[in-house]
Amino acid sequence: MRAVEIRGSFGFDNLAIVERPDPRPGLGQVLVRLRAASLNYRDLLTAEGKYNPKQKLPLIPCSDGAGVVVEIGDGVTRVRPGDRVCAIFSQKWIAGVPTREKLRATLGGPLDGTLAELAVYDQEGVVQIPPHLSDEEAATLPCAAVTAWSALVTEGGVTAGDTVLVQGTGGVSLFALQFAKLLGARVIATSSRDDKLARVRKMGAAEGINYRENAEWGTRAKELTGGPGVDHVVEVGGAGTLHQSLRAVRFGGTISLIGNLAGTKTELLLTQIFMQKIRVNGILVGHRESFEAMNRAIEIHHLRPVIDRVFPLEEVRAAFDHMAAGDHFGKIVVRI
Amino acid sequence: MRAVEIRGSFGFDNLAIVERPDPRPGLGQVLVRLRAASLNYRDLLTAEGKYNPKQKLPLIPCSDGAGVVVEIGDGVTRVRPGDRVCAIFSQKWIAGVPTREKLRATLGGPLDGTLAELAVYDQEGVVQIPPHLSDEEAATLPCAAVTAWSALVTEGGVTAGDTVLVQGTGGVSLFALQFAKLLGARVIATSSRDDKLARVRKMGAAEGINYRENAEWGTRAKELTGGPGVDHVVEVGGAGTLHQSLRAVRFGGTISLIGNLAGTKTELLLTQIFMQKIRVNGILVGHRESFEAMNRAIEIHHLRPVIDRVFPLEEVRAAFDHMAAGDHFGKIVVRI
Amino acid sequence: MRAVEIRGSFGFDNLAIVERPDPRPGLGQVLVRLRAASLNYRDLLTAEGKYNPKQKLPLIPCSDGAGVVVEIGDGVTRVRPGDRVCAIFSQKWIAGVPTREKLRATLGGPLDGTLAELAVYDQEGVVQIPPHLSDEEAATLPCAAVTAWSALVTEGGVTAGDTVLVQGTGGVSLFALQFAKLLGARVIATSSRDDKLARVRKMGAAEGINYRENAEWGTRAKELTGGPGVDHVVEVGGAGTLHQSLRAVRFGGTISLIGNLAGTKTELLLTQIFMQKIRVNGILVGHRESFEAMNRAIEIHHLRPVIDRVFPLEEVRAAFDHMAAGDHFGKIVVRI
Amino acid sequence: MRAVEIRGSFGFDNLAIVERPDPRPGLGQVLVRLRAASLNYRDLLTAEGKYNPKQKLPLIPCSDGAGVVVEIGDGVTRVRPGDRVCAIFSQKWIAGVPTREKLRATLGGPLDGTLAELAVYDQEGVVQIPPHLSDEEAATLPCAAVTAWSALVTEGGVTAGDTVLVQGTGGVSLFALQFAKLLGARVIATSSRDDKLARVRKMGAAEGINYRENAEWGTRAKELTGGPGVDHVVEVGGAGTLHQSLRAVRFGGTISLIGNLAGTKTELLLTQIFMQKIRVNGILVGHRESFEAMNRAIEIHHLRPVIDRVFPLEEVRAAFDHMAAGDHFGKIVVRI
Repeated sequence: MRAVEIRGSFGFDNLAIVERPDPRPGLGQVLVRLRAASLNYRDLLTAEGKYNPKQKLPLIPCSDGAGVVVEIGDGVTRVRPGDRVCAIFSQKWIAGVPTREKLRATLGGPLDGTLAELAVYDQEGVVQIPPHLSDEEAATLPCAAVTAWSALVTEGGVTAGDTVLVQGTGGVSLFALQFAKLLGARVIATSSRDDKLARVRKMGAAEGINYRENAEWGTRAKELTGGPGVDHVVEVGGAGTLHQSLRAVRFGGTISLIGNLAGTKTELLLTQIFMQKIRVNGILVGHRESFEAMNRAIEIHHLRPVIDRVFPLEEVRAAFDHMAAGDHFGKIVVRI
Repeated sequence: MRAVEIRGSFGFDNLAIVERPDPRPGLGQVLVRLRAASLNYRDLLTAEGKYNPKQKLPLIPCSDGAGVVVEIGDGVTRVRPGDRVCAIFSQKWIAGVPTREKLRATLGGPLDGTLAELAVYDQEGVVQIPPHLSDEEAATLPCAAVTAWSALVTEGGVTAGDTVLVQGTGGVSLFALQFAKLLGARVIATSSRDDKLARVRKMGAAEGINYRENAEWGTRAKELTGGPGVDHVVEVGGAGTLHQSLRAVRFGGTISLIGNLAGTKTELLLTQIFMQKIRVNGILVGHRESFEAMNRAIEIHHLRPVIDRVFPLEEVRAAFDHMAAGDHFGKIVVRI
Repeated sequence: MRAVEIRGSFGFDNLAIVERPDPRPGLGQVLVRLRAASLNYRDLLTAEGKYNPKQKLPLIPCSDGAGVVVEIGDGVTRVRPGDRVCAIFSQKWIAGVPTREKLRATLGGPLDGTLAELAVYDQEGVVQIPPHLSDEEAATLPCAAVTAWSALVTEGGVTAGDTVLVQGTGGVSLFALQFAKLLGARVIATSSRDDKLARVRKMGAAEGINYRENAEWGTRAKELTGGPGVDHVVEVGGAGTLHQSLRAVRFGGTISLIGNLAGTKTELLLTQIFMQKIRVNGILVGHRESFEAMNRAIEIHHLRPVIDRVFPLEEVRAAFDHMAAGDHFGKIVVRI
Repeated sequence: MRAVEIRGSFGFDNLAIVERPDPRPGLGQVLVRLRAASLNYRDLLTAEGKYNPKQKLPLIPCSDGAGVVVEIGDGVTRVRPGDRVCAIFSQKWIAGVPTREKLRATLGGPLDGTLAELAVYDQEGVVQIPPHLSDEEAATLPCAAVTAWSALVTEGGVTAGDTVLVQGTGGVSLFALQFAKLLGARVIATSSRDDKLARVRKMGAAEGINYRENAEWGTRAKELTGGPGVDHVVEVGGAGTLHQSLRAVRFGGTISLIGNLAGTKTELLLTQIFMQKIRVNGILVGHRESFEAMNRAIEIHHLRPVIDRVFPLEEVRAAFDHMAAGDHFGKIVVRI
């Protein structure tokens, strides 16, 4: 089979298409022919050697993908050949309490990822794909969508009438916007560009704030709630945005801390967190049960992920460069 | 002021329009000019003396109403004259843990209710009305809508992708249908008539079951979920429907027990409840904080209550008869 | 190996000690040498053919047992030979949402149970035993203790200062008493005998009620709380006791519905459940994560299960007769 | 009546005993003769003008106190003359969702506090004192104890078998230790002094770590759990301790963020919070319902607060100096 590897040393220049022996499913395992993979910011960091410096190479990058089961090992009951599936990000986190062991058995590092024609997973590590989704669409779900679902639903309990703030137009933020709308919440979105704000408004955001033009966008978001502040912030910027998020959120509100796109270190005024009784929820994707619950919602509502652009496997390097440029709107997909 | 009283003894025949002195607001109180009231099944039972045999007469019936603040007492800060408000069902249940004392300070018995031109409430006992609602629409909220909201949201945690079963087309059931839709859930509705099923489908129910034609409607509802059963049943029938509800609900699902329209006593097979790990949640309307959260959702979504028919105050007896006939679709309102 | 079977047809007379081939662990499986098993009321019903009439025979009865790992199959990482383990009741319910499939893969029917010298389990289906417990003590945990823990902790959220009512002196009730004490709750216990009440008081129950002498024991329990009622009832009697439990519980309180020792059918006044906003939680043992959390608590507190009597394997019939007599205080164990 | 005021400008030197007119209770209000007050770190900051620079003077400092009801206004039903009561910290936060308005109506700033012989409160703003407590003991509850209870119980859901880390030997930390023990948790405590560690061990802490001798006390705490880390950290140090707390806590664990005794600003590595799926809960004391639930637990267990030292009213300045010295073990009380 063909696969993409980071080989030799880290860096986009070391992404190469290689031949590997076809894997075979053992007891309780399934063999999946992958048809599409999608990129997350984590995959960029991994390729650059910044995510986990101890990561061994070669590594097949990317945690997210979709394909079809082509063979099953003995004892497999959850899926059958022909079923379309996604692999889950943390292969061992099925449900319940997270542990280091569960949270660290992740695809795209330390385990090989989804930029390959074939992959073997434990039957417990895959979920069925909602039938209305294409392979490219399904490939966007495992990290970005599950993260947004865990933040808003599993951990956040967002409900109808709440106001949710989403930052920018990357994959997690757009899924958060879509899910918040499904849940009956009101969405305030930020972006650096008015044309993107126009697009998120079209997707259902009630309000858009251009953070380039309005550095005090947190205060502005609070005003847009009529005073009290937003109930829930989906925080993807980290250190670079948290100060404004703390201005935006209401007393007793929640900040789902998901990423640090805008910086890793900040002089955080901790006092605000307890003086306003804020809950800061660290989110690390989520378990399979969240993925399955999300898929039920996606299926019922025929929700479609937003795809920015699809690259053929041969242009995988261009896909990474495109993500690094940071100008995408939605998910970047590689067709395998 | 004019008011409707149950006077002398119980029975619809003893509903009379009377003159009472105008009330005045004391410290922390507000005077409300009521413009509409709505009927609940509880009001029928009360008028017939079946709800609380110890209820003293005369009593102004009905717990639900809407009006405008015309005067405020000293110390009132939550509302101003001119504000449109509803009174809350349990005047002392603002938030948190219910107690006997909180749950029993209810309008329409033991306290005087909303079928009057004027009423005085503690400022803590009223909520602002979403601006897009008419007085008649707002008057339907305090019991039926808050009950549905408490069942699905405050206590039930219904979320996108869940399946909710609602029974019939009374006030609580239609609000439950509307709220379940806001929350992103899929709704299965039952009715004895196909024309009503057509209407609930138009309101967004994914499926309708005619329980006259299909006595095993619980089993049918389960089939309609593809096997596992529904996540949440809004049980208004009580003894007469619970057996089928237990067939409909999934392992680990929830039955919100709200009413007993179809009977009060049943030989309940308790074994089913624990063998399927069912949660049966008794719901008694809800607190003010639920009402306010619900109103935020109603306002954001411009949701409109379903009104079956509006009667003038002079025809209040006809309104009660109409409800007793049981053929309504949505709420019955009295304009004051 | 030797094992106890229900053979031919149901009934205690058909309990027989037989020879079976030694089982061997496959991939991901462990071989356990069982040293003790304990009886639950369910095992009596099963032996009598009343629990699941479709159960196929022969069947090795009993779901609860403790032993030592003597061999592991390939791929086993959770335990090692020499580890002392209990098998979990629902072999597939590791954590999270229950499903029919998870809840029905139970030991002692439909799957073979623990009254055998050897048994093979999936590595995911066993838990480590707290070191201070003997084999006989550990054998009491899988059903009775996990049920009590799920009721009070996982589902019930009982906390310090709450009042918990436990019924009788069977296994679940005594574990509930012990766990409620660990959690800082106050316990009211019932029994038909004053000598047993003296024993539960010695174990930490604040109050004991002789239900033979006081048929209105629910009302009495409520009085003992100073008025409001108990926060949580661990209901093991079912139809025969639920009416009194509904008298005992406070507005907004919880009844964990666990068993039906005192009858399966009742004319339940459903009205009480919603007029007092009661939550009735059906409990079906619990998942492995609850078992593991419970074991942490048992270990920290050096808690010891209450064993009524230990029978040798040869006297297994006597053990069943002893349980059927219903006069035990705590768990009945069979040493293997 | 006599009262302590911060007068003229901020600073301990401006604490003065003054005469004020006796207050009288209005409608729904109670007059309390205060017998003891206790100090919190917040009171020091307030006196120094560091807590809220906009605070108007003169101000009666201190939020915590205990006394006896000496007179009630019309309409008061919750208490009677002779009842011993504490005032609650946020006079308007009775239960439910916090709001700016609820959380900012606090005693000891902006409202006058408890260092006075008499005070008037709304009847909703007081709670009954557990009978076994002295006035001095009861005076320690409103902030420190309720904060610890909210962190562990209301918001934290700490339960039997959990491990809780408490920092130092101030009021909140010792209450957290005591409550964690009631709840069946295991406690790891830190201090700069071995004699204090000996005292917390005597109070039930399983382990003590001298953070002077062991700068990596977070890592040490993790080791003491056998590997996974502690379930819950009661974080009172803020910026100065949070880095170690993040080392101590398990994947998926909780940090209750309560104070910033050891610094307000930190370069926080946000990445740790989401990579370990940590929940950071800002805690701002708590509502009356938490106070009442806590009092039930305190009463059942005859729990006694730890008092470091009691000062007479005349030596109030010495009490502030003593707290500023930072060498206390438990609460500092002023007898009025």
